[in-house]
Amino acid sequence: MTAALPWDHLDINELGHLTIGGADTLALVEEYGTPLYAMSEEAIRENCRLYRRSMERFYQGRGMVAYASKAFCCKAMCTIAREEGLGLDVVSAGELYTARAAGFPMERVLFHGNNKTPEELAMALEYGVGRIVADNLTELGTLNAMAAARGVIAPVMLRIKPGVDAHTHSFIRTGQIDSKFGFALETGEALGAVKLALEAKSLRLTGLHCHIGSQIFEIEPFCHAVTVMLEFMGLICRETGTALAELNLGGGFGIRYIAENDPVPYDRYMEKISGVVKSCCTKLGFPEPFLILEPGRSIVGAAGLTLYRVGEVKVIPGVRTYVSVDGGMGDNPRYALYHADYTFTAAARAGEAKTQVVTVAGKCCESGDLLGENVPLQEVKPGEVLAVLATGAYNYSMASSYNRNPRPPVVLVGENGPRVIVRRESLEDLVANDMG
Amino acid sequence: MTAALPWDHLDINELGHLTIGGADTLALVEEYGTPLYAMSEEAIRENCRLYRRSMERFYQGRGMVAYASKAFCCKAMCTIAREEGLGLDVVSAGELYTARAAGFPMERVLFHGNNKTPEELAMALEYGVGRIVADNLTELGTLNAMAAARGVIAPVMLRIKPGVDAHTHSFIRTGQIDSKFGFALETGEALGAVKLALEAKSLRLTGLHCHIGSQIFEIEPFCHAVTVMLEFMGLICRETGTALAELNLGGGFGIRYIAENDPVPYDRYMEKISGVVKSCCTKLGFPEPFLILEPGRSIVGAAGLTLYRVGEVKVIPGVRTYVSVDGGMGDNPRYALYHADYTFTAAARAGEAKTQVVTVAGKCCESGDLLGENVPLQEVKPGEVLAVLATGAYNYSMASSYNRNPRPPVVLVGENGPRVIVRRESLEDLVANDMG
Repeated sequence: MTAALPWDHLDINELGHLTIGGADTLALVEEYGTPLYAMSEEAIRENCRLYRRSMERFYQGRGMVAYASKAFCCKAMCTIAREEGLGLDVVSAGELYTARAAGFPMERVLFHGNNKTPEELAMALEYGVGRIVADNLTELGTLNAMAAARGVIAPVMLRIKPGVDAHTHSFIRTGQIDSKFGFALETGEALGAVKLALEAKSLRLTGLHCHIGSQIFEIEPFCHAVTVMLEFMGLICRETGTALAELNLGGGFGIRYIAENDPVPYDRYMEKISGVVKSCCTKLGFPEPFLILEPGRSIVGAAGLTLYRVGEVKVIPGVRTYVSVDGGMGDNPRYALYHADYTFTAAARAGEAKTQVVTVAGKCCESGDLLGENVPLQEVKPGEVLAVLATGAYNYSMASSYNRNPRPPVVLVGENGPRVIVRRESLEDLVANDMG
Repeated sequence: MTAALPWDHLDINELGHLTIGGADTLALVEEYGTPLYAMSEEAIRENCRLYRRSMERFYQGRGMVAYASKAFCCKAMCTIAREEGLGLDVVSAGELYTARAAGFPMERVLFHGNNKTPEELAMALEYGVGRIVADNLTELGTLNAMAAARGVIAPVMLRIKPGVDAHTHSFIRTGQIDSKFGFALETGEALGAVKLALEAKSLRLTGLHCHIGSQIFEIEPFCHAVTVMLEFMGLICRETGTALAELNLGGGFGIRYIAENDPVPYDRYMEKISGVVKSCCTKLGFPEPFLILEPGRSIVGAAGLTLYRVGEVKVIPGVRTYVSVDGGMGDNPRYALYHADYTFTAAARAGEAKTQVVTVAGKCCESGDLLGENVPLQEVKPGEVLAVLATGAYNYSMASSYNRNPRPPVVLVGENGPRVIVRRESLEDLVANDMG
């Protein structure tokens, strides 16, 4: 870790080249071409372990860390989560299918979503998913009927909106009442849903879930959510006599995209949260619940980067300099969607000072196809390799083949060197579903 | 065409169902499932013909209408463009590959892009593309060297920034000087590039291109661009003695997304533009150029719609009502990207009054996964089919499988009924490139 690169798995080698997990990024490009997603296996596994160790250390392991696979889902990543003893949060038939294809144990899978289709619910029951996190009354009714028809009992949690505002981008704030997700607490909707779920013959309510937002850099909103949720579980206990056993706090833990970002160490989250859980439970006379956490971005986000070839460098005097790369909003739509921050560096000279401010543009025929505006960068020339850091989450998973640009491959750099875990999309792939 | 549905190819049948190209949308859903893109072949072909007829009528056919395939690219659409005698504007190896797979005549293809890769330029030369629209000096140099090495002459146009502001969304405004696309006029960059292209041994400069933006509802910016470009062509002629033969005015013609949108009939564009071309040329003593137009959105946009199944309808008292559907930002990212307007209707009751205002949400695990906010809609119930109109452009082409939701199929409704032109992505497709 250098001052220029405040991420543990990134470094600069004796040639001055950026490395990831010890691999020279220019050698990766030589071997696999551009654009290219590269990820450090060690960084991913270490993040998994940090969460699990925190759960052990501060909560005696009475919980489960479930990887939120929407951040980056492929068979290899499901395998890593399985090997590291994590659970898995899936949000679609496609993610569930991927998990099974990777041999993920279904009892450790949680199925989320504000609008699961009947086909998805049927698949969850057929696969024997460990917990279906129900979002609304329609879903509870459908699931109860489906489970009854199959003669099974469906394990469910309920997604609750705790009304906690996590001070983040409005697009990714999901705990407040104006959300498409979950049951509102303050209107009585949540309590009604709990009673219904407890009474339903073919449902087994294991506990409650909440998710207060994404890319959060504070502990306080999580502690507040814990308090709100436990008080609600206390109320449920008094009203129904049932002490729910599980509390799922979702994800949302922030990561470092740029040097200025200062993520909270997982240990501090867990220490603080478990402290709040314990004191709340003592106060309420409520048994300490089995805790579930669902980190996604914080497992894979910083562990990945994207390597592009620079094409045109267009200096518009007095206006700005456009550095165009051979990818763009197709492989990383997060700037177009959220004006997300990223760190850019010339891969061959990662330690050199960034002496200019540029706009990094993609190759799509669309003016909004930018990866960053007014970002510091070394003087780069056409043909150089540009690295965009911390692209491990919500890049490959959100990628499109807009402009019929093939989606890049994902290379995982492990102990035994790099290996392709997602193949590059081919031109043949692009037309594979085109008829006639 | 009814007052409720101001699009010619949409209607309401005796059952009250929305029809597209005469096909009952509920029958389409019954046959092909949801989410589903449906397009009217007649509407697409009629749009192609309107452009060609306008070119005949007002400019004696001395031009070419090239379909901008980035709006919607698949083999069947390339075939339609070919059959209708259009040219084709492609922006990537993938689009070029698709065009060839559809047997599109390469001499009528234009290859665009601000950052074509060397591989793409080589492919364009190998395929014998009719015009490569060069964006920058790096590209001109690469292309000249590549063509020389192959012993061929590459036909090129140059993309010029005419500095015309088309009063549209900043993301899709591309004619102004602060753009990643093209050569600036006012700095002398464009003239320098023209001279360089004229001198290059292995390039043949056929003319100039400009594109002033997208979804434009006024004729004036186009006329202004014509004037600017012809004056520049006059200047080139005086400076170099070469009268360039071709003027490519790009696309950007607006379409109706909502009833309030009032697109200019193509005839009026063409009548006005050809008038300006003729009077400018007379004034300048310059030969009237071969004109190229590149409509994309206006060929396919209004011709398509998307059919979804409504899942949960979540009423948050005093806040808003969320109507969740079984697709979302994966198959239509335009609301998340641009807050784009769309028209929504219950497919089974398209003629009924829209008595509520709702937010239409997708099924992705992301708060920003919305298709529209505060849009009028009939009272809809879970299980109903919802249609989103005018989704023929930049929906399938921008689609991702975010959350591992498979991309929907495209059904083309023609004279002989509906047929699938792009198959639904399968769960197997989603993991097809996943290794191990």
